[in-house]
Amino acid sequence: MLKVGVIGALGKMGQETIKAVSNEDEMKVVAALDVVKTGEEIKIGENSYKISDSIEKASKNVDVFIDFTGPKSVKENAKQIIGLGKNLIIGATGILEAEINELRVLALENKVNVMIIPNFAIGAVLMMEFSKRAAKYFNEVEILEYHHPYKLDAPSGTAIKTAKLIQETKESREKLKGKEIIEGARGANVGDINIHSIRLNGFVASQEVIFGGAGQTLKIRHDSINRESFMPGVILALKNINEIEGVIYGMEAIL
Amino acid sequence: MLKVGVIGALGKMGQETIKAVSNEDEMKVVAALDVVKTGEEIKIGENSYKISDSIEKASKNVDVFIDFTGPKSVKENAKQIIGLGKNLIIGATGILEAEINELRVLALENKVNVMIIPNFAIGAVLMMEFSKRAAKYFNEVEILEYHHPYKLDAPSGTAIKTAKLIQETKESREKLKGKEIIEGARGANVGDINIHSIRLNGFVASQEVIFGGAGQTLKIRHDSINRESFMPGVILALKNINEIEGVIYGMEAIL
Amino acid sequence: MLKVGVIGALGKMGQETIKAVSNEDEMKVVAALDVVKTGEEIKIGENSYKISDSIEKASKNVDVFIDFTGPKSVKENAKQIIGLGKNLIIGATGILEAEINELRVLALENKVNVMIIPNFAIGAVLMMEFSKRAAKYFNEVEILEYHHPYKLDAPSGTAIKTAKLIQETKESREKLKGKEIIEGARGANVGDINIHSIRLNGFVASQEVIFGGAGQTLKIRHDSINRESFMPGVILALKNINEIEGVIYGMEAIL
Amino acid sequence: MLKVGVIGALGKMGQETIKAVSNEDEMKVVAALDVVKTGEEIKIGENSYKISDSIEKASKNVDVFIDFTGPKSVKENAKQIIGLGKNLIIGATGILEAEINELRVLALENKVNVMIIPNFAIGAVLMMEFSKRAAKYFNEVEILEYHHPYKLDAPSGTAIKTAKLIQETKESREKLKGKEIIEGARGANVGDINIHSIRLNGFVASQEVIFGGAGQTLKIRHDSINRESFMPGVILALKNINEIEGVIYGMEAIL
Repeated sequence: MLKVGVIGALGKMGQETIKAVSNEDEMKVVAALDVVKTGEEIKIGENSYKISDSIEKASKNVDVFIDFTGPKSVKENAKQIIGLGKNLIIGATGILEAEINELRVLALENKVNVMIIPNFAIGAVLMMEFSKRAAKYFNEVEILEYHHPYKLDAPSGTAIKTAKLIQETKESREKLKGKEIIEGARGANVGDINIHSIRLNGFVASQEVIFGGAGQTLKIRHDSINRESFMPGVILALKNINEIEGVIYGMEAIL
Repeated sequence: MLKVGVIGALGKMGQETIKAVSNEDEMKVVAALDVVKTGEEIKIGENSYKISDSIEKASKNVDVFIDFTGPKSVKENAKQIIGLGKNLIIGATGILEAEINELRVLALENKVNVMIIPNFAIGAVLMMEFSKRAAKYFNEVEILEYHHPYKLDAPSGTAIKTAKLIQETKESREKLKGKEIIEGARGANVGDINIHSIRLNGFVASQEVIFGGAGQTLKIRHDSINRESFMPGVILALKNINEIEGVIYGMEAIL
Repeated sequence: MLKVGVIGALGKMGQETIKAVSNEDEMKVVAALDVVKTGEEIKIGENSYKISDSIEKASKNVDVFIDFTGPKSVKENAKQIIGLGKNLIIGATGILEAEINELRVLALENKVNVMIIPNFAIGAVLMMEFSKRAAKYFNEVEILEYHHPYKLDAPSGTAIKTAKLIQETKESREKLKGKEIIEGARGANVGDINIHSIRLNGFVASQEVIFGGAGQTLKIRHDSINRESFMPGVILALKNINEIEGVIYGMEAIL
Repeated sequence: MLKVGVIGALGKMGQETIKAVSNEDEMKVVAALDVVKTGEEIKIGENSYKISDSIEKASKNVDVFIDFTGPKSVKENAKQIIGLGKNLIIGATGILEAEINELRVLALENKVNVMIIPNFAIGAVLMMEFSKRAAKYFNEVEILEYHHPYKLDAPSGTAIKTAKLIQETKESREKLKGKEIIEGARGANVGDINIHSIRLNGFVASQEVIFGGAGQTLKIRHDSINRESFMPGVILALKNINEIEGVIYGMEAIL
């Protein structure tokens, strides 16, 4: 029985994770940590959890922490947890690339395993993997991403990451770009890849990668309509935390 | 039996039209006109046609001309045909808006019917009609158009026309535009409507109009994979040429 | 200010409606009725509502009732409300076709307006309208509907209704049906129309109507990802309840 | 310079292959074989080819044969070509599974390489590969395939093959099958996988594999709109024929 400590337990991802873990036989939430409602007994899904704010106290009973807080606390939390000799899954954003190496050294010293997972959606990770593979056989590709209109940035981080992965597969890619009679028609360019960002209510997070060739297209599309879509990835990460070695980055490392 | 004269008979649209008319019971191609191979007997589909270059001679036996030539000749052809008292379908581009009125006067004087049809694809015309209708009930809309990479301009004329039709339905439309961290991500703007132009082999001519609202999207999409897709529109125009009065513009006027 | 009474106020549609009405300037929920938690003060959205179980008492202050209960109570509720001389929107299922005429007579006697709306999703209603229109110009059509796997019946009611609407447009439709080497491959038949029912998590309620012709397809698709998608239809119904005359059936009557 | 002999040179695939090879720098068609128009000089693309009917004569100058004939001749052709010590790509259908072993023995004896490729569309082969991979992480999946209405069988061979590949990844798969209120709604069953066959003009050959999970779907779709889509696969096969060893089956073996 894997004993899990959830940090940021009252946030959306924290609550979904607590509910998802409670449906699994081989794991259990033994600590729910947050900086609000500390000391209170809070019902999340079927069960109630006493909210704590001490990683140190919680660590006595925990096998693995999973952190959904945010940029302000994620790095300090990580150092503390690794120092306490506990395995850790970082589901919060805010770890810079330069800091990963620091964590790598710490993890080695303390003999713990750490996963840094910016996107738990298995479908999105597979979409990227398949795109990279298809890019070897198709010269032409464009990326369309669809999000709700409250998303601040365009293109999405996932679209940019996908374009970079595709870009790596060829030294250069023929740019098939008609003349724009209205600026912006052909989208944003990441290397030789064009990205189009659609922002409409009715979408949560969708992306389609379209490969074109003479007489054929190959399309890989991922649609996410709510936060539940991350839970299979969260559970898979928890199931694998004892199997990895040291620090890994991204769901793709365990798929 | 409607007797049809095809001008630009050896071009792609001309040949497809001759083949399509030969499959109909109530109409027949009696004259095939072109400026090349004049006087030669040319096989098109199942039958052979002697290519002529005289509208005047052909007109003796013709009920309706259909013109697929081009901007250089289309206006002169129109004047001549109307002057000869014959009905006319103009499938070539090149008639300016200002010239339509001139044709209107001529058609009235000569008691003939004229159709000016820039796009025979019934599906595309319905897509525009439906988009205009849906735009009354949805505040948010974006247009995606997909064409082969040899298309010179982006966005397509159909996409711009669709945007303008939608634009007419509301005085102003909320612009939901996230910040572009890479220029062009949010597409081209026609009024408040964003258009995204995808250029890939494997597409011929496709367009999707996506309406968004809280929790729902409505999508209207037209895919054309070859020139045959124009033929039902050509036949419908021919069947209706005697029923209209004066000059009409666009397939939408007979749907 | 339109004064609204919501029956079935604590159900999902009732709560969403109360929240949606509270965002409108020209209408207000003045009565929240349900058979549970009667007499309690319940917070729904930003405001609290005292739950009542008496239509009669509530009617003194109400301009229009909207009923989201269910087959067991919807007819009796309707008779009572019409008898009290109040306008009514029936959003619950359970009114049989034969009973509509009975309501029509009652509404006339009591000079009230009644809307019976089985589906408030404007997008879905437009999809049906457009399908009926496109069916005049395309001989071939198939319907695909996508729902979550907990939906009990296949095909969906909306798919069957769409097929019937399309069927009405032509006396007969060519059936293009290849031999099934595995039974069921070509879907369910409603008249000459084939319907395919997909059941997968990740969908809530989607439908695509695909029209085919030589070299082209026209697709009309509606995707609903949550109950919010019904609210624009609910608000539109409320805004129009005083404008109609007698009994109307379906959103299509007010679009 | 790879010297290619095309058997079935005047068929659709043969002609497309001859045109495609003529665009490549490292290969050349040196023999065009067919059973019709033998001895005639026939223009295919930019060049003319004298049609021959003797594999034996042609083999003196040929490095690799590619056969697009059909079930009646493909096996005898294969034996003869292998006996002549020449490499061979079989693009025709008609080799039974039992016969592949026979060819394997012959190829070994004669030290030649043989590829048997039932489907040259790289996109379709990648679609199957990706589907097999995604099936490990998603419990639910359905297959939709879209073809022109003249296709005789439903479901398509590719759909059945895809279903079998997916089926192999799990011992059993939860069957989420709502009650059919009209027979056929839920499609054809291959093991636990449901397949839906759409037959409409406007499609040539398309397939979509949809994986579903809580809150997300992953879709892999291949659209083919003409025979040109096979040419990149044909060229890839020709480029790899000297690199393989013995007999291989399917494009997937060289991707």
